[in-house]
This record gives sequence, C-alpha cells and structure tokens, in this order.
Amino acid sequence: MHYPTPIAKLIESYMKLPGIGAKTAARLAFYTIDMKEEDVTEFAKALISVKRDLHYCDVCGNITESAVCSICQDTSRDKSVVLVVEESKDVMSMEKMREYRGQYHVLHGVLSPMDGTGPDDINITSLIQRLHNEEIEEVIIATNATTEGEATAMYLSRLIKPAGIKVTRLAHGLSVGSDIEYADEVTLLKAVEGRREM
Amino acid sequence: MHYPTPIAKLIESYMKLPGIGAKTAARLAFYTIDMKEEDVTEFAKALISVKRDLHYCDVCGNITESAVCSICQDTSRDKSVVLVVEESKDVMSMEKMREYRGQYHVLHGVLSPMDGTGPDDINITSLIQRLHNEEIEEVIIATNATTEGEATAMYLSRLIKPAGIKVTRLAHGLSVGSDIEYADEVTLLKAVEGRREM
Repeated sequence: MHYPTPIAKLIESYMKLPGIGAKTAARLAFYTIDMKEEDVTEFAKALISVKRDLHYCDVCGNITESAVCSICQDTSRDKSVVLVVEESKDVMSMEKMREYRGQYHVLHGVLSPMDGTGPDDINITSLIQRLHNEEIEEVIIATNATTEGEATAMYLSRLIKPAGIKVTRLAHGLSVGSDIEYADEVTLLKAVEGRREM
Repeated sequence: MHYPTPIAKLIESYMKLPGIGAKTAARLAFYTIDMKEEDVTEFAKALISVKRDLHYCDVCGNITESAVCSICQDTSRDKSVVLVVEESKDVMSMEKMREYRGQYHVLHGVLSPMDGTGPDDINITSLIQRLHNEEIEEVIIATNATTEGEATAMYLSRLIKPAGIKVTRLAHGLSVGSDIEYADEVTLLKAVEGRREM
C-alpha cells in the first residue's frame, strides 16, 4: 500500500525543505491533515505570497515588499556607512542587535571559484555604483567567517580601498559566554591576534 | 526593523508545525524565498489538497481519497482479521511490514479520561458494527504501548470478547537490535513475562 496521492505529494514538498527527511516529512504531512482548515489555507497563501510579493530592494538588494526597502527609505539612518552581508537574513540578524543605524548592502552569495560564482554573479556592481553616487565614508564587510566569506571580504577590500573609502571587517574571536576549552584553534588564533589593551 | 509581512506570515505558519520553533521557521521561510517558483506552488497546492481531497474510509476510518479505502476494497485480503490502530499513520507503518494481509480499523485517538476522551469520542461504534455485520474471527489490538493505549486495549478486549471473537494484542518486549543494558524496567518485565520456549 502506498500513501494516498495528496499525502504523498505533501510529503514530497516537505522533503524539499532543508533538514527535513522522509520520516519528518511524513510526520508533518499527517499533522497537517489534522490541522485547522484556516491554518492550512493561511499556510498555502503565505507560501504563494513570499514568491509573489517579495522583491529585492533597488538600492541595497535586501528583501522587501516595495521597490525600495524600509531601511533605505529611513531618512533618520546614517547614510555614510554601508554594512555588506551575504544574505537578507543577515540584515535581520544585524537589526536585532538594535545598535547599527547605517545602511546595508546584500550580496546574495559569496565568491566561490569551486561553485563557479564570480564577481558578476553576486550583487557587487550595484555596490560600486552606490560608492560612486552616494557620500559613503565606511564600508563594513560582514560576510561569514568561512573561506568563501573571507575571500569575498578580501576581494571587496581591494576593490574599494583605492577609492579612499575606509573598509572594515567584523571582529573575529571567542563568542560571548563560550569556554576557551571548547573553542577551535582558528577562533583562538583570531582572538589572540585581535586582543585589546584593558 | 521587522520582517516584511509575507515572510512574517510564512514564519508564523511554519511555527504551527510540530517541533518547529522560531529560528527553524525563519530558516525555512528564507529558504522558501529562494526555492523554485513551481516547487512552492506545488507545496501550496499539496497543502490545500490534503485538507480538501482526503476523507475517512466509511468502513475502517483510514485516510483515503475515495469513499472506501484501497485496503477495504482489496478482495484478496483476509476479511476475518481486523487490526485496530490509533491513527492512520499506524496503518502505513503496518503496511510497510508487508506481512499482514487482513483488515484495519482506525480509532482516531485513545481513551483518555484525563483529556475527557471517552468511548463515544473515538471510532469504536463502527468497529462494533463491523463485528456484527462481517464475519470477523480475530481482532488484533495494536494501540500504542502507553498508559492510554493499554487502557483502550483493555476496554476493547472486554467489549469484544463476550461476542466470542478472539482478541489479541501485539507482543511487548525488547526491540530487535537493542541492548538489555539500555532497556527500561517495564519493557524488560514485559520481555520476561512474554518469554517463549526455544
């Protein structure tokens, strides 16, 4: 006996999500059958909506419902600093900090020669245009602390510095609340290199 | 800054699924934005479809697309044995075994005085009717090995036995491949009680 077609199809869809295997997908599908009709309808509408109603901001590339995102529209924010991130979700993480009041620029990827991702495949051209057209004094590069993230940071730094704009990178070191015992060697090295006077 | 409404709504929907918290829901929502348009549309359709196209089988209560499920329709199956399970997904688990060739009956729950679930709240009446109308010789009770599952098994057994029908219960004992060292006391007790001559 196979699953009835509607369940089989839903299981298949759930399995396309990251970190969800066959067993979890089946559990979620059976759970969905018993969910309130309106909740399931809302769910389906929300799925369609994220694909239909979301666009990339014309200025910074962040995900938004309008042509220009709310951060780029906000005149109270500092226009002289741009923080460069890999993905839109990194913007959300930064905003949760409630400290940074400058602009953003979303690359939608990182340079990765292994995967064939070059400078033209990510959102770099529009960043350079912004640096030309706007009065930007500092670019903070907040790509991830991975090999690709570091390489992208290095590339951007070499590209931007000659224009006389200050380029900075987020500090690497121990996570707050973490044990030295459990830190990996590279993190420890970065923490020692980046030590500060007390 | 908050999430744009379409993302916020999708995160909310994902959070209604079991075992998915705020962080995982956000990860899934951002992943969904980058999924192929057709995959997302399929996903939304599948969600609507499980609520719209699935019904309970008129005979056994199993989930099906038609009035009577494929197992009840299958004339090659043994009509004299009924295996009683708590949920439709238990039918799928049993069918994966590829050994059992009898009928099923899905209770859609268990007796649970704590939650106010009595005999009238689960699919028992139609089971009794089947025992009256069909030529059933054995009822295998395959409710879960929980307090509620055991209580339901006991209740059904007392209800059915007087009609002269054989009532059996799945064996309890050590899982195949498990260590005695890690088995809990109740499982060990059941394994000793149910020991067989070699």
